[in-house]
Amino acid sequence: MSDQMQRVVLASRPNGAPTADNFRLETSALPIPGPEEVLVKLHYMSLDPYMRGRMDDAKSYAAPVPVGGTMEAGAVGEVIASNSPVFKPGDFAFGMFGWVSHGCLPASQLQKLDPNHGPITAALGVLGMPGLTGWFGLNEYGKPKAGETLVVAAATGPVGSMVGQLAKRAGLRTVGIAGGADKCGLAVETFGFDACLDHRAYNDAAALRTALEATCPHGIDIYYENVAGKVLEAVLPLMNDFGRIPVCGMISYYGGAKGADADLTAPMIWRTVLVKFLSVQGFIIMNHFDRHPEFLKEIGPLVANGEIRYLEDIAKGLESAPAAFMAMLEGGNMGKQIVKLV
Amino acid sequence: MSDQMQRVVLASRPNGAPTADNFRLETSALPIPGPEEVLVKLHYMSLDPYMRGRMDDAKSYAAPVPVGGTMEAGAVGEVIASNSPVFKPGDFAFGMFGWVSHGCLPASQLQKLDPNHGPITAALGVLGMPGLTGWFGLNEYGKPKAGETLVVAAATGPVGSMVGQLAKRAGLRTVGIAGGADKCGLAVETFGFDACLDHRAYNDAAALRTALEATCPHGIDIYYENVAGKVLEAVLPLMNDFGRIPVCGMISYYGGAKGADADLTAPMIWRTVLVKFLSVQGFIIMNHFDRHPEFLKEIGPLVANGEIRYLEDIAKGLESAPAAFMAMLEGGNMGKQIVKLV
Repeated sequence: MSDQMQRVVLASRPNGAPTADNFRLETSALPIPGPEEVLVKLHYMSLDPYMRGRMDDAKSYAAPVPVGGTMEAGAVGEVIASNSPVFKPGDFAFGMFGWVSHGCLPASQLQKLDPNHGPITAALGVLGMPGLTGWFGLNEYGKPKAGETLVVAAATGPVGSMVGQLAKRAGLRTVGIAGGADKCGLAVETFGFDACLDHRAYNDAAALRTALEATCPHGIDIYYENVAGKVLEAVLPLMNDFGRIPVCGMISYYGGAKGADADLTAPMIWRTVLVKFLSVQGFIIMNHFDRHPEFLKEIGPLVANGEIRYLEDIAKGLESAPAAFMAMLEGGNMGKQIVKLV
Repeated sequence: MSDQMQRVVLASRPNGAPTADNFRLETSALPIPGPEEVLVKLHYMSLDPYMRGRMDDAKSYAAPVPVGGTMEAGAVGEVIASNSPVFKPGDFAFGMFGWVSHGCLPASQLQKLDPNHGPITAALGVLGMPGLTGWFGLNEYGKPKAGETLVVAAATGPVGSMVGQLAKRAGLRTVGIAGGADKCGLAVETFGFDACLDHRAYNDAAALRTALEATCPHGIDIYYENVAGKVLEAVLPLMNDFGRIPVCGMISYYGGAKGADADLTAPMIWRTVLVKFLSVQGFIIMNHFDRHPEFLKEIGPLVANGEIRYLEDIAKGLESAPAAFMAMLEGGNMGKQIVKLV
């Protein structure tokens, strides 16, 4: 067992899209677990769009990563030392370890994984935070009803694919939006979307809206928001009365909104909210982790028997994390982006 | 009894703020009530901001008034002829008669008024649509909790003054926004607001925000939205986590948003909704008239015994309605704007 570990730190704050020099790989001594702490050798870490927000020094629901600080991430791995009676070496655990090869956390902040419940990577995606986000936001705020129409972007991502599959099972017409013909094919074939539009095939929001209108002949009842920008602008006028918009992300604004996004004005948003009696609800899943057991009980068996499908895109090695993260923000991944660390 | 009646019709559609030539006073023969219809000589009619929306040929929750058509309004008056067993001459009734001196409607569309329940003008304001709007939006979507802070603009108007008084009774800190020192004084003295800011005293949203921040030391939990524009832009960054924004109007956008309103971008709105977990809910009271009896039962006695106060601004004569309406859109009224017709 080496006494060294690697981490990726925030070398500098990005200006728009992150670049390689915003990250730095560092080596340091392996931490020594204190009382009640557990040392874990990580096998897989998660890459998620929310991490882009943490790179900015802006007031948000979470403190920014300080310059020189370790990038945040959820990760799973094997316990190699433990000062807690709850964990023993050889156990597998999930925790918010960061972009690291090894990590030390109090046992109370770890979640023990049962390897019999399927691959441990599921804890980072379909049965972890992204899956829970899709399940909770759709059911709690989207309030799906059979016969309605749902639209979600990033349809092959871990949130969008969960939302689409759950809505389909609830009897809704599901229309995905994704980048490129490959992803659109995957959305329909693997995740059962009734249709999927390639946003790259439409120059502007108006063109995308025309296509959506044809694909959603009865309008849109639920727009599960995770991208904003051009898609939001295309969708808004197509919302039906009493429509619902759960807002869990807005990836198109994370690098600073620009260009066509400026076409979407407050009056347009606010007027639509009023004249169509819309419900818009912002949320982050951190506030609702108490629902995780209920989610696992309902969705775990459906993942195990293949009724809920998922897709992973696995990069190799901690040093590949920055490039994989930057590619993901541009839509370069196919499915849940994970980094294999060992 | 004259056999003639007057009405105000939409002569042309406004371009921005309405002008006198958008309206025309017409004289026609008194209608003859058909089966189950009731002919009413109107005593008072209501002027409300929503009527501005009906003047545009834009898709909204209600059809626009056609050019040449009678302007819409709720009005109260005395039955002078009835083909319904439910109404007899001398009864008082409320209905959506329009900007008219006399009107004929099916009995099923009328609400009988009990003159013992206070002045019949109350049916146009504090106990009518505006009062119901404030009561329903605050309780249903604002979900007030003691100790929280509420902000509402047009604080001396019939909606804002109801919202402020109900929130105060529920134990909230209430901060009004109004145009001019007179209205601000009235908001505090008559309607019990803890404070009221004069939006005209602040050049831009940033200045208004600074003043609001000082007046709301614990942030804002409920922003009851009826004006949008500069006030919305000032309020948004001060919202607390899990804040609620019931949206029942946006008077500053009714004439076409311009100037500083353009500073409020979709990314700013959407980001705030996300990072503060806000609930934004558009509604119009037309969809919730079934709650009127419950409202009357709860609020009627409080109006009768003076615990809920209200203020009326009464213009004289149907011919004065266009000028009173235009003045109201600019904030020229003090309290609920009514037109006395007889």
